[in-house]
Amino acid sequence: MDKESLKVIPLGGLGEIGKNITAIEYKDEIIVIDGGISFPDEDMYGVDLVIPDIRYLLENKNKIKGMFLTHGHEDHIGAIPYILKQINMPVYGTRLTLGLVENKLKEHNILRESKLKPVRTGQTIKLENLKIEFIGVTHSIADSCALAIYTPMGIILHTGDFKIDYTPIDGRMTNLNRMAALGKKGVLLLMADSTNVERQGHSISEKSIGETLKRIFSGAQGRIIVATFASNIHRMQQIADASIAYNRKIAFSGRSMENISEVAMNLGYLHVPDEYIIDIKDVNKYPSEEVTIITTGSQGEPMAGLSRIAYGSHRLISIQPGDLFIISASPIPGNDKLVSRVINQLFRKGVDVIYEDLEEIHVSGHAYQEELKLIHSLVKPKYFMPVHGEYRHLKHHRDLAIKLGMKPESVFTLETGQVLEISEDGVNTSKTVHTGVLFVDGIGVGDVGNIVLRDRRDLAKDGMVTIVVAINKENYSIVAGPDVITRGFIYAREAEDIINKVKEISKEEIERCLEKEILEWQVLKNSVRKSVEHFLYHKTKRNPSVFPIIMEV
Amino acid sequence: MDKESLKVIPLGGLGEIGKNITAIEYKDEIIVIDGGISFPDEDMYGVDLVIPDIRYLLENKNKIKGMFLTHGHEDHIGAIPYILKQINMPVYGTRLTLGLVENKLKEHNILRESKLKPVRTGQTIKLENLKIEFIGVTHSIADSCALAIYTPMGIILHTGDFKIDYTPIDGRMTNLNRMAALGKKGVLLLMADSTNVERQGHSISEKSIGETLKRIFSGAQGRIIVATFASNIHRMQQIADASIAYNRKIAFSGRSMENISEVAMNLGYLHVPDEYIIDIKDVNKYPSEEVTIITTGSQGEPMAGLSRIAYGSHRLISIQPGDLFIISASPIPGNDKLVSRVINQLFRKGVDVIYEDLEEIHVSGHAYQEELKLIHSLVKPKYFMPVHGEYRHLKHHRDLAIKLGMKPESVFTLETGQVLEISEDGVNTSKTVHTGVLFVDGIGVGDVGNIVLRDRRDLAKDGMVTIVVAINKENYSIVAGPDVITRGFIYAREAEDIINKVKEISKEEIERCLEKEILEWQVLKNSVRKSVEHFLYHKTKRNPSVFPIIMEV
Repeated sequence: MDKESLKVIPLGGLGEIGKNITAIEYKDEIIVIDGGISFPDEDMYGVDLVIPDIRYLLENKNKIKGMFLTHGHEDHIGAIPYILKQINMPVYGTRLTLGLVENKLKEHNILRESKLKPVRTGQTIKLENLKIEFIGVTHSIADSCALAIYTPMGIILHTGDFKIDYTPIDGRMTNLNRMAALGKKGVLLLMADSTNVERQGHSISEKSIGETLKRIFSGAQGRIIVATFASNIHRMQQIADASIAYNRKIAFSGRSMENISEVAMNLGYLHVPDEYIIDIKDVNKYPSEEVTIITTGSQGEPMAGLSRIAYGSHRLISIQPGDLFIISASPIPGNDKLVSRVINQLFRKGVDVIYEDLEEIHVSGHAYQEELKLIHSLVKPKYFMPVHGEYRHLKHHRDLAIKLGMKPESVFTLETGQVLEISEDGVNTSKTVHTGVLFVDGIGVGDVGNIVLRDRRDLAKDGMVTIVVAINKENYSIVAGPDVITRGFIYAREAEDIINKVKEISKEEIERCLEKEILEWQVLKNSVRKSVEHFLYHKTKRNPSVFPIIMEV
Repeated sequence: MDKESLKVIPLGGLGEIGKNITAIEYKDEIIVIDGGISFPDEDMYGVDLVIPDIRYLLENKNKIKGMFLTHGHEDHIGAIPYILKQINMPVYGTRLTLGLVENKLKEHNILRESKLKPVRTGQTIKLENLKIEFIGVTHSIADSCALAIYTPMGIILHTGDFKIDYTPIDGRMTNLNRMAALGKKGVLLLMADSTNVERQGHSISEKSIGETLKRIFSGAQGRIIVATFASNIHRMQQIADASIAYNRKIAFSGRSMENISEVAMNLGYLHVPDEYIIDIKDVNKYPSEEVTIITTGSQGEPMAGLSRIAYGSHRLISIQPGDLFIISASPIPGNDKLVSRVINQLFRKGVDVIYEDLEEIHVSGHAYQEELKLIHSLVKPKYFMPVHGEYRHLKHHRDLAIKLGMKPESVFTLETGQVLEISEDGVNTSKTVHTGVLFVDGIGVGDVGNIVLRDRRDLAKDGMVTIVVAINKENYSIVAGPDVITRGFIYAREAEDIINKVKEISKEEIERCLEKEILEWQVLKNSVRKSVEHFLYHKTKRNPSVFPIIMEV
């Protein structure tokens, strides 16, 4: 029989950014913390989303008691519809977080059968052996929580994503008192956000952005168009406050901006007097100096609001002289060029743009080194496991904990799939469970895999050359073709000689095979493919995908 | 007859990063400043390099007197082989710059017939009407120059890429005295580097990196492996100096690192006593603490030295416990993820890595705001034209000049292809010349264009579906097929139903056409393509490229 043990099973989010999901297992109870997506790498052509492979949860379905959400960002809730379709567990979270989940479940048509359980910050959910307490923390989305998980073997404290902001917009600070109290009680395991562990010092308060915004607003003559993250309701509030201060009406543009602002206002997280909200359709009815537009597209996404305005393809908003654009966000790594493209385009159109390189108009929602040190020092855990970050971040968070006095053997730098098992014998990290990713492309989930992606990459690199030939199945002679079509390889008008040569080579190769009575089409296709590939590489130093097709007639 | 006029014709490098090339034309003389490449955007699949379209130069071949190089970076010299193959003009540059050009011409087998003309800093080349003076400046590659172009209408000062470093590694400071003297004489037009115009203050001296390196070297126990830009010879020198100070031999790894270090040592720009240089093959013969390896791959390029070492695919170097890696470079926008991937991998292998987020081990080679202000104030030009930068940089450089007192109508923010024409009537910017880009893919130059790239993007996104059918050309009936092959679309085993349905739809569509005696294959193919595309989008929300092929037998 197994000894009593407590397992922490990261199914995503360790050694990677995004796709956060962790299972905590004790006896016959499993709880799931978060269910996030990650965004595809640039070489995952055509993939819309990446979601975690939850085979482990499916195999232990009967143990699962529910999902507990730390906050409403995509990398923590984006995969929930896909997960609930397979395991309809109760989902616990604060009201705003569940409000955002609700929107997703509606889109997937599974809201009705879902079991969303709103909790208040400070509330504790009791299961059979486990108890889960929601502890308020500050982050770049309102209503974020850390989770204290009480187990018969001790307390696990999972910080979620957090920062320490002594002047938070909603007055709801990271609950340091509660963390200190837990520290006093004794915390078995701390799992803490590693995102900003490489940044020295202390993050800046969100409130400082409000001051910058008011300064900028005070000098603006025309419309102000601010692009920011739709989920950053505190930022939205500050933009609204600055607008009201300078007598501007506020319009929201972009689907997620409209959705989230509505949810946030309905639930009381975003406070804007009704008379200041206008519909984006009515923007032109107001004098320019009385309008603020809050839009999506702060990452330069070509289909989002900001880019559409910049390139003149927005349904309702076109650039006016005197418009002032503010990009109140940092480019996420990989998006710098997209953001720069939009900035250039706006300057070309003759309007002004303010962005992070010029003014302090964005702050991070993740704790810097000094904030992390504070949490470690308050909580004084027995064991520590850095979470949320690439390996470099986990490694540096480990180093930080050790510098603060933890023994190296009490700190566990694990990656997705590695199990942290605590028993009375101590900690064992040698077990692994199956984990992985599923690609979402269009409607399909998991029907695009590595082979399909490899083919897409090959096709992208040098295009394709298809060779078709019809062969008489009675006497094995060529009756039509070879015909050649190419796409993405070379300009047809430049390629005439090359294509003729491909036809010639294919013909020779087929005839050679037929003479030798090689009637295995697979063998024949391979020899055609190889000869053509060889010729094309020699001639062009390119490797298009070559597809010979044989028709028997 | 035309009035006397002086034309500045940017053929690349304005409103974009890279591909720097400018023509200066006076009467029947044209000189070309630099001939650079740019690197392909992520969506230019399969493209190796982007070079400028020089149609304007080809059309005015007889006027061209030579090319004048500011420095040896790829974005200033990379296109020279492609240009010289079409116009064999003399190429003037300092010795290191020409040394690097020489390497390129050798690779392209055109060194012998090329006319490389080495100049010394301070030297002046006299043409019929124009005189070109090379003025030393500091930049992240040694032997960089600004160019003063003396014309009958006045002096043009082109800064090239530069910074102001009061403690340069080679003692060769940006020649402020000369610039001041020109300013006193009167400069008609200043063209100045805009890359870092958004950065406040003054750039840091290259020398400070040397101090950081020495501190890091002093504590290292095992091998030190430094990745940096192969062209940054000052950085190489400082790494070498730190190595020598701590009694380490130096090995160079990576083709460009080996090439450029050799050129730099031969020409006397890099000073390392022979006994400290070892071959990369011999690294393992020395104790770890006596070895420094300087390698390529600082941008995380998957095929370069650093990545190969990290992923265990380097021919000669494998990771040892105790190795210390230093990435002495900033990720160029777009490369952040690649660099991060390598860092993560190195940490996973258990070695230490120092990079820009942790230590000051890289400085920029481009002037910040205060340096630019100094140049403007010394030169006091009549006209100003910001160069080298995206539109946002040109715009901010314009603003800077105006803040310093220039009249807005004397500052010209042009983009590639817009001609700045100075005559006694003043300045005219209404003329344009043909410019553009050519893609280099494998051996081909210009045979991949927008249509080919569009096809590659389409193929990359959702793959392709090819439908082949053989039709009897006597009685117009289907004799074989339709057969369907797909690549990059969907897992074949998931797709059986879909593929059968595609066959069915194609068959119906063809039969319908044949019944109606539609025997135009193009019409028939279009109806098959449309029906299949419609079905696939409806079924999967994807848009693979659909290629119907009809064989007449």
